[in-house]
Amino acid sequence: MKAYLITIGDEILSGRTLDINSNFIAKELDNIGISAIRFSIVSDKNDTIKQELAKAFDSEADFIFTTGGLGPTKDDKTKQAIADFLSDVLILHQPSLEYITEIYCKNGRKMNELTRNQAMVPSRSEVIINRYGTAPVLWTKENNKILINLPGVPYETRAMMTEFIIPKIKREFNLSYIIRRSLTVVDFPESELALTLNDWENNLPDFISLSYLPSGARIELRLTVKGNNREELESSLLREINKLPAIIGKRLVSTQTTNIQDIIADYLKKNNLTFSVAESLTGGTISQKITSVSGSSAYYKGGITSYSVEAKETLLHIPHDVILQHTVVSEEVAKEMAKQSARLFNTDIAISTTGVAGPDSDDFNNPVGLAYIGLYFQKEIFVKKYFFPNLTRDEMITRISNKALEMLYFKIIENE
Amino acid sequence: MKAYLITIGDEILSGRTLDINSNFIAKELDNIGISAIRFSIVSDKNDTIKQELAKAFDSEADFIFTTGGLGPTKDDKTKQAIADFLSDVLILHQPSLEYITEIYCKNGRKMNELTRNQAMVPSRSEVIINRYGTAPVLWTKENNKILINLPGVPYETRAMMTEFIIPKIKREFNLSYIIRRSLTVVDFPESELALTLNDWENNLPDFISLSYLPSGARIELRLTVKGNNREELESSLLREINKLPAIIGKRLVSTQTTNIQDIIADYLKKNNLTFSVAESLTGGTISQKITSVSGSSAYYKGGITSYSVEAKETLLHIPHDVILQHTVVSEEVAKEMAKQSARLFNTDIAISTTGVAGPDSDDFNNPVGLAYIGLYFQKEIFVKKYFFPNLTRDEMITRISNKALEMLYFKIIENE
Repeated sequence: MKAYLITIGDEILSGRTLDINSNFIAKELDNIGISAIRFSIVSDKNDTIKQELAKAFDSEADFIFTTGGLGPTKDDKTKQAIADFLSDVLILHQPSLEYITEIYCKNGRKMNELTRNQAMVPSRSEVIINRYGTAPVLWTKENNKILINLPGVPYETRAMMTEFIIPKIKREFNLSYIIRRSLTVVDFPESELALTLNDWENNLPDFISLSYLPSGARIELRLTVKGNNREELESSLLREINKLPAIIGKRLVSTQTTNIQDIIADYLKKNNLTFSVAESLTGGTISQKITSVSGSSAYYKGGITSYSVEAKETLLHIPHDVILQHTVVSEEVAKEMAKQSARLFNTDIAISTTGVAGPDSDDFNNPVGLAYIGLYFQKEIFVKKYFFPNLTRDEMITRISNKALEMLYFKIIENE
Repeated sequence: MKAYLITIGDEILSGRTLDINSNFIAKELDNIGISAIRFSIVSDKNDTIKQELAKAFDSEADFIFTTGGLGPTKDDKTKQAIADFLSDVLILHQPSLEYITEIYCKNGRKMNELTRNQAMVPSRSEVIINRYGTAPVLWTKENNKILINLPGVPYETRAMMTEFIIPKIKREFNLSYIIRRSLTVVDFPESELALTLNDWENNLPDFISLSYLPSGARIELRLTVKGNNREELESSLLREINKLPAIIGKRLVSTQTTNIQDIIADYLKKNNLTFSVAESLTGGTISQKITSVSGSSAYYKGGITSYSVEAKETLLHIPHDVILQHTVVSEEVAKEMAKQSARLFNTDIAISTTGVAGPDSDDFNNPVGLAYIGLYFQKEIFVKKYFFPNLTRDEMITRISNKALEMLYFKIIENE
């Protein structure tokens, strides 16, 4: 089955807001075997919305999703456009009105005409009360298609998708299976890998599709199968994956996952090792990435963000002389930071970063883009130097955070 | 002038990859007064790409952008589709081939047939060598429109947009001015604010447009003007903004910016105050947000992420008894964390977070979703308790990080 996703809102077309709803909805649908055939992001004008609905109803899609434009203000035009398109009218939905009134009352707010408008819905639509906000979610059957209207607020749309829409689709439709496997290849240029896999790829069964998804120094090979016999799909997938170690060799580092934090987590848990950080340049970003993995408290003890010279001296105990002689952005300071982090948190492994993210150079006149990553790994210390003079501040922070995790990751692969 | 943005790639439709290129391109265009009229995200099939190009050439857009599908593998089909659509052929572009060969040589890699394909371009297209990757960027004039093809890798597309495409558009076209001002309103439900502003909004000149952009406890009011006389535009904008304090009152907290980190940064710099954090639940996220502001080292001294009980005791010096009696997720521990962070980093202000992000509860059986935020503010200590049992781990971390910054922000507004 197929889906057509429409995002409504001028704030997205102006670049002010990033549309993350389409991505989330597509991912959720993909998990139950429904493929998005397109995303359209359009202006919140009545005519534009109607035209886009017409295209969607004209397409091969079985499900049409809209997000946005269900709120109470003047630029929220989705419901009227839907009613116009369906030759329907908006009517007051009493349970929605009561629910909205209750929410407002609880929060000590008063209802007004605009708020009441939120309870107006097309007369033929099924209303799913939005437990995470006030704009009702709509489900409308029309011409053998299902039109689903969700709010623009990502938090509301995500919760309503997961808790109501996906279960409802599963209940009402007979869906085929979809299975995915992601493999991680390192140190292989995409075009060389494609040539190496040419024969294998050409001989894949029709129902298996392959994508190359490069990300930094890694390439994700993603295999997807769709069909009705789950066991058969799984065994064909496995049969094809089992041919790969002989073709790719040791550069195929995982046939299970592509998430570097997960690979690190697995290794630390398996080997009963603990980890900490000391960040300067990256300002907490590595810590944030590590703690995004659930269960990370089993191996992650914590980190120090030493953003000032003072904090490097008092909290990380880096000798004043070392800083004076080498400056804070140096191999020596990166080494000391990693070592001290391991000592203070009593960990087996520690990572440190120091550098100049810009736009201005630091107090020691180190150039923007210079960085050192330190790695303390079971009593040994390693340092890598990087220089990225053309990156923006954000890009520099992201790049060095990723490089730091990759440095640990490659050390782990070496040790495996 | 108007633009039509096409993103090509099945990995985006499947939800595997978030399309951030459209957002970036739209924002850059918006800054020079070019409005995106739609984003289309489509599959990387030759026919689909051709059909979408036909729609774009049929639209009112002056510029058509594509991103993705320029790489060397089998699923990169954009160039052939463009050539087919334009009734053109792909020819070898010698300077591109030389450039790609040089890049490969420098990186110790060998050219192959797939790599060489990257230098094949439609014969009538102008080639802009991609200084950040190997896929050439294309600029093609056709039917009074400009077709611009950029790679899918965000880093390459961003750099090429900023350094080559935007300057080239500015050089070749006479663009009208666009000016934006964002105002921040707090503690005002969107619908009530809309009613309050009704008269003012209805009397806005035609060339001024208004958007309501709610985000947590704040609403951004965004005013946009477009036209040819820069001075006139600026003075009308100012005239309208100057009416607002009398209408909205003290809940209009900024007529300059909407970024909470920026407002905090301004306040700390203006008052010569320093800041630090102690994070548990948020694992470095607050530190990461604060250091994303350039120049933050002037007021931000650093932070401790104490992800283990041990780190809370040894690094933050929280008494063992306090933890035993109240558990790590408690008002008392949040207070101690904030106080100790201020003491250790020698700062005027410190924020702390402790809580259970889930999916499992902690060692003390505190429920998932429980959190405390501590704020040490010039010798006073405040704590707030939150309970969000329905959020995912990521959402919980994001929510509490934002709440922590908002807590400081409201304290600042109170003190202003």
